[in-house]
Amino acid sequence: MFFEGSEKKAEIYIKSDQCSLLDDIDDHFWHELVAAGNAKILSSISNRYCKAFILSESSLFVWRDHFLILTCGITQLVKSIEYFIEHIGQENITYCSYQRKNEYYSNAQPSSFGDDIKLLGEYINGNALRFGEIDGHHNYYFYKENNQFTNEDKAYEFITYQVNYDVLSKLSSKALTSSDIREFLKLERLFPQFILDDFVFKPYGYSINGLYKDKYFTIHITPQANSSYISIAANVDLIKLVPDILTILQPVSFDLLSTNEHEFEQYIQQQVPTEYVSKTLVKETLKNGSFMCFANYILPQKTFSKANHFNLIEDNHAL
Amino acid sequence: MFFEGSEKKAEIYIKSDQCSLLDDIDDHFWHELVAAGNAKILSSISNRYCKAFILSESSLFVWRDHFLILTCGITQLVKSIEYFIEHIGQENITYCSYQRKNEYYSNAQPSSFGDDIKLLGEYINGNALRFGEIDGHHNYYFYKENNQFTNEDKAYEFITYQVNYDVLSKLSSKALTSSDIREFLKLERLFPQFILDDFVFKPYGYSINGLYKDKYFTIHITPQANSSYISIAANVDLIKLVPDILTILQPVSFDLLSTNEHEFEQYIQQQVPTEYVSKTLVKETLKNGSFMCFANYILPQKTFSKANHFNLIEDNHAL
Repeated sequence: MFFEGSEKKAEIYIKSDQCSLLDDIDDHFWHELVAAGNAKILSSISNRYCKAFILSESSLFVWRDHFLILTCGITQLVKSIEYFIEHIGQENITYCSYQRKNEYYSNAQPSSFGDDIKLLGEYINGNALRFGEIDGHHNYYFYKENNQFTNEDKAYEFITYQVNYDVLSKLSSKALTSSDIREFLKLERLFPQFILDDFVFKPYGYSINGLYKDKYFTIHITPQANSSYISIAANVDLIKLVPDILTILQPVSFDLLSTNEHEFEQYIQQQVPTEYVSKTLVKETLKNGSFMCFANYILPQKTFSKANHFNLIEDNHAL
Repeated sequence: MFFEGSEKKAEIYIKSDQCSLLDDIDDHFWHELVAAGNAKILSSISNRYCKAFILSESSLFVWRDHFLILTCGITQLVKSIEYFIEHIGQENITYCSYQRKNEYYSNAQPSSFGDDIKLLGEYINGNALRFGEIDGHHNYYFYKENNQFTNEDKAYEFITYQVNYDVLSKLSSKALTSSDIREFLKLERLFPQFILDDFVFKPYGYSINGLYKDKYFTIHITPQANSSYISIAANVDLIKLVPDILTILQPVSFDLLSTNEHEFEQYIQQQVPTEYVSKTLVKETLKNGSFMCFANYILPQKTFSKANHFNLIEDNHAL
């Protein structure tokens, strides 16, 4: 069974004197916002800084003056952004970014990135970029043009592809519990002190949110061997975790993406094992001052593998 | 301006005692067949073995007992195959293969590979495979199940991506003539003795067909920097030309695909320059006895480049 793990991601800041998204807005609003994009809220955790929701497709994090939402599958995240803007008022939005990872099956998506930013453009004057070449893993990125706002927060993404077959078998075994997965991923060691909320999907799939003070991390696992996709996003340093996570997942390819990590170039050279080679390296300072980096690595293949065979009836929807 | 260079490719053999596709069928039939897939015939050359047509989107080659057609852009090649089967009769078809390269923008295509083989499946009982992983360059392949027919012909494809920027500037300059391009590609040296037919598209793009006895080659160039794609297909050895062509085009990535080249594994090790590393290596013996190999290579990146910036109005159709 095919599932599109590739995510769309949006981050929106509001004028902090207007209201607190965390304290003044009830869950009903977030349920409606998520539903506008065709997803559902499944559960939540919170501390005094942030409330984190597990969604039917990925995650939502709400702080006082901003929120971050990731959705995967065939959801339409721009509709959630539109819902937010129409309810909060575009004059109250100081920053908005919308990012979209290229999909395995873009033909199955309800819209293209071009369609998405055409809709966003009705509300927000912005710029569009692509990190990475069109013939490899890449991210489209749209952000509001606003010289008054500088986002200085650091953020990281680490996405793995073609994860080791035995790892995927483990992660898609039937009787798997959330504590099995937490242990397998060594989450207690990688993210100590975080409070956790997770969800094991049937027949496959896993999502987890973690909070510690104003810090978050979120992991989403699509373990299907034909379309494996494991993503980690956080506002704590993920680059220092690269060696550990590569040892656990053993992917053939992975992406690193960072915002405002000024040491990215040197740091990845220290952290990425030498058996991986860099296929794509991009850095860019946005007009609003944010510094973004994107890198894709692959493990060169030494031996020939067999082709993938399809069952014409069962697999047709994923071809 | 974006153009989808990625090709669909079909090869069909008929019972040779029924008729000669070359001698008994007039051009009107091929015009109609090509039109069924939403392309047009622009010109042709022929010798006593083969007739070669340049199409508005790629090429068509007709021999006595088989034909080969490649189409790119947003054409729908399966409709041309359907036209052929309905006119020639499915009982007269001994072999049929249909191959589809993953597109840069699959969302802009009128159908998916799954849709295509669903249509073909109404006429032909066959098998489906994928050469290459879903998160990189790959080819879907469908072929008629027929143990009586063994295709022993050798065939080759060589596709380059992220071609050197200066090469693309040259190939998309305004006053370019066909003889400029032939000279730039050193075609006289690479394919001596072939008779040639080519077409320079406006504002960009180039196609050439070559024939020598029963041998063909065809080259299609999409020189747009954002979506560069240069493909060479032939039934003469292309692997021996790898070093020369890489020197001319200097791509960041390329594919090699071969049918019945039993020395592929050793041969590419000799021919591919060591600065390229193998991202994908696949070999497979089909149920009909054909031996197919697919390899994708990349040039590891050492330095960071800038992100690609888009003009929201001009570029929207290609996002």
